[in-house]
This record gives sequence, C-alpha cells and structure tokens, in this order.
Amino acid sequence: MNSEQLFEQIKQKQSFLCIGLDPEITKLPACLRDAELPLFEFNRRIIDATYDLAVAYKPNLAFYECFGTAGWKQLELTISHIRDHYPGILIIADAKRGDIGNTSKKYAETFFEILKCDAVTVAPYMGADSVLPFLEYPGKWVILLALTSNPGSDDFQFLSTGNHERLFETVLRKSKHWGNSDNMMYVVGATRASMLVKVREILPDHFLLIPGIGAQGGDLEEVVRYGFNDRCGLIVNSSRAIIYADASERFAEIAREKAVEVQRKMKDILGERL
Amino acid sequence: MNSEQLFEQIKQKQSFLCIGLDPEITKLPACLRDAELPLFEFNRRIIDATYDLAVAYKPNLAFYECFGTAGWKQLELTISHIRDHYPGILIIADAKRGDIGNTSKKYAETFFEILKCDAVTVAPYMGADSVLPFLEYPGKWVILLALTSNPGSDDFQFLSTGNHERLFETVLRKSKHWGNSDNMMYVVGATRASMLVKVREILPDHFLLIPGIGAQGGDLEEVVRYGFNDRCGLIVNSSRAIIYADASERFAEIAREKAVEVQRKMKDILGERL
Repeated sequence: MNSEQLFEQIKQKQSFLCIGLDPEITKLPACLRDAELPLFEFNRRIIDATYDLAVAYKPNLAFYECFGTAGWKQLELTISHIRDHYPGILIIADAKRGDIGNTSKKYAETFFEILKCDAVTVAPYMGADSVLPFLEYPGKWVILLALTSNPGSDDFQFLSTGNHERLFETVLRKSKHWGNSDNMMYVVGATRASMLVKVREILPDHFLLIPGIGAQGGDLEEVVRYGFNDRCGLIVNSSRAIIYADASERFAEIAREKAVEVQRKMKDILGERL
Repeated sequence: MNSEQLFEQIKQKQSFLCIGLDPEITKLPACLRDAELPLFEFNRRIIDATYDLAVAYKPNLAFYECFGTAGWKQLELTISHIRDHYPGILIIADAKRGDIGNTSKKYAETFFEILKCDAVTVAPYMGADSVLPFLEYPGKWVILLALTSNPGSDDFQFLSTGNHERLFETVLRKSKHWGNSDNMMYVVGATRASMLVKVREILPDHFLLIPGIGAQGGDLEEVVRYGFNDRCGLIVNSSRAIIYADASERFAEIAREKAVEVQRKMKDILGERL
C-alpha cells in the first residue's frame, strides 16, 4: 500500500483511526478467558465490530510474545483474519525492532514475509543499516520511533544535538533520506502535540502514527491542529480506550460505540479540512 | 545470577566467551537442513560441544522469529536444553526490545518468566520507563545498547549532546542510576574498542557485553586493553566465527576448536591480569 492508497482509504472511511490490538489476559471479558484461543477470539470480535471505522490495526508484539508459541499462533491468526476478511486495512506490527543489518533483514522477513504485515515500527538508535533492510520491500512501511508518548521520552529524545536541534529532530532529518513518504512513517506521541509543528517543518508530507490518544491523555484536536497536512498525514492510534471500554459479553459492541465516537470526530475534521 | 557469580564462573572456566546462537537456515550444515527441528538440532550440537568453554549463550530473536511459531518453539527448546543440562550458564535473549512501561512489562514477562532467560538486550531510545520493568526481576539482567558494532552506530550514538559528551555516553551516565552493576550490563561494540576508555570512566564496575569480535572485525586484545576491570567486566560475544566455522557433519567439532582458540587467549589474558 502506498500513501495515495492510504489517503484514499481515509477518505472512503472518513477515518484516520488505528486500533491497537493489545490483548491482556487479565483485562479480557470473562466470557473469553476460558476460550481455546482467547487473544485471537477477542481480536476477531473487536475487528469484526470495527473494520469499517478503522484504516489500520496495530497489534503490539509484546502482548503475544508473552504467551510464547501460543501467542505467536494467535497473532498469526489475527493477521490472517484481517487479511482474509478486510483486505486493504493497514496492518502495523508494533514491534520496535532494530538490529545490525543482517539481523534486521531477518526481522524484515518475519514481519513482511511470514506475518504479512504492511508496516513495522522500528527503533532508530542503531542507525541506517538497522532500518534499511525493512525498506527493501515494495509497498511495505517502516514506522520509525521519533517522539514517543511515554514519560521516558524526556530522557534522550529531547537532548540537544547541536544546531538548535533535539535528538528526535535529528532522527527525523537524517532518516528521511533513507526512504520516502511512500515507505516511511514516524511515531510521534500525542502527549507532545505541539512538537508536531517541528515535525512538520522537517517532514511536511510523511504520514505520522500518533499513539497516546485516550488512555495516555493525548488530545485529538491538538494533534490535528499541528499535524494535519493536505493528505491528512495522520494515523491516530487508540488501544485501551476502545478495546477495553467494556468487559461484559457486549464488549465488541461497546468497542464499536467508542470507535464510532472517534470516527465521527475524524469525519468532522476531514470535512472541514479537505 | 549476580555479578559475583558471573565472575566466579569466568574464573572457573577461564573464559569470558559468549557464543551467539544465530542459526540461519541457509548456513546450516546440509546434514541438518532436513531435520524436523533444524535450528534446535544445530544449537543443541553447538552447545553440547562448547558448554565448558563459554560463560554465556546469546540467541538473537530475529533468527527464530523468522520461522514464526516453529522458530519460537525451537528457541524455547534451546533455552530449556541449556537450563536442564548446563545450569549456571548465562542465557542472554538478544532481543533489543523496549516500549512504554506497561508494554515493556510484558516483554519482561516473556523473557524472564516464559523463556526463563537470565538477561535481555534493551534499546535505550524510549528512556527509563521502557527499561525499569526489566529491572524488577531479582537475579535478572538488562543489557542496554550503548555503542553498537554496526556502521549505523555513527548516525546517532556519536551525536554531541552537550557537556563534551556524546549520546552513547549520556545513555551510560543517565541509565546507570536506573539499576546497578548486579542487574545492568551494556552493549559496547568491539569495532570501537578505544571508546571503552570513555565507557570505563563512566562505568568502572559494570559488565560489558562486547559484540563484533570475529566476523565483524573487532580485536580481542584491544577490547581487553581498554575494557578489562578487576573482575574481568567483559563478556565477549562471537557468533558466526564459531558456529559457522564449518558446514560439514563435523561442524560442532570445528566450532569447539574455534571456541577453544578463543578460550585459550582468554585464559592467558585472565592469567596475566587477575
């Protein structure tokens, strides 16, 4: 999928919502806890209830790996379910990988060939050769960490790296030459929405993946004010606020209601701005 | 395992060698390629041939994940084999993980509770709360990326972050307060051995995991000259130069010969310096 196709999907669904599929066993509805494949069953029902409201799903690998092979199997089933029933939706492996070149090549194989995801989040610390192997797959995306939404983002991402620039800005400026706006996006946390001004100075055209809306306290209007571009340019993720909105047997229905609330706001925003 | 126990093992084996278990299917001996569990079978034979020469084994997750659930199963079997037959050897999951707090917590569960590794490599970019959950396990280790051995390490790790300090030094200086020398080590690539002087100024006591010896061109003597401390303080990794030294049916025997060569050098170094 290239950026134009992503933009088409955004216009068609009137949404730039990504739903994070981070199933924690202790938070799953009681009715699912004894299921044979509880993570997959949970995801499947969330996906079936929201596929027309979201342009992307983002499973975070941590929530699957912690069940070992059983977790990986349910991740594979989740991705296949989206692929088979709702083609065209962007599948983002939130894996935050990155290693020396020959090793990143293996991770790229894993996420793009084996799991058949469209995009994978990558950590920038190890530099170009840790990222480039992911960019060798036409139609696939690297989503590079730039500015994250957690408290620890203060520790290194805001360090001054000279030339009136902070580390996250250096990451953006250097890495934008590794790929282009059809194969690279960036993670920019919503809890720092005003920083999007700086991000857009460096990257006017790239899509940005914005975590931190909802449970982490980010604000959609702020993000749009500073980050929206002429092709939307934003994918806004919500995980817990949607998928754990309810823990009864009606969880999928309530998750849909929460997703509809977000999608309506997005529809208004797209109507005003495009 | 604490640092004292690790030092005891180093003295006992007269070795500070870590063997990287990075089985690539195309490089495996032909006699194993049709095995039901080729990665595990390869690892098992390497381990059985080298367990008395190495103080640590370091499987890199990328080489297992790229086979999906079958890969994870073989990783689990590999770790169990070391645990069951050679207790006391440090098992390092080279995973380079790191995510927001509640997600890193899941990764910590995966590597310490499910896979029962002793240590996991973690990327620093997301800061303290991405690392702290791994430090809540007594006897377990975080091995934080500081200075990596790949060409891309130039992109960000050497950026000047003020106060005559570079990013990798800031990572060392800030993060050393998150844990202590009994639960944190650092990755410092051997291809930058002279940088170990700077590392030792900041971290005189910590163990360092040194990749890049062998195939990546690092030099053992250089590493020892600049990085050795009064409890050795070094774990030197070699992967390809040992495990792929031979591709015949004698691969494990030849791997042992290569490991013996390294261990003899280490024995001499330990004899001279302790």
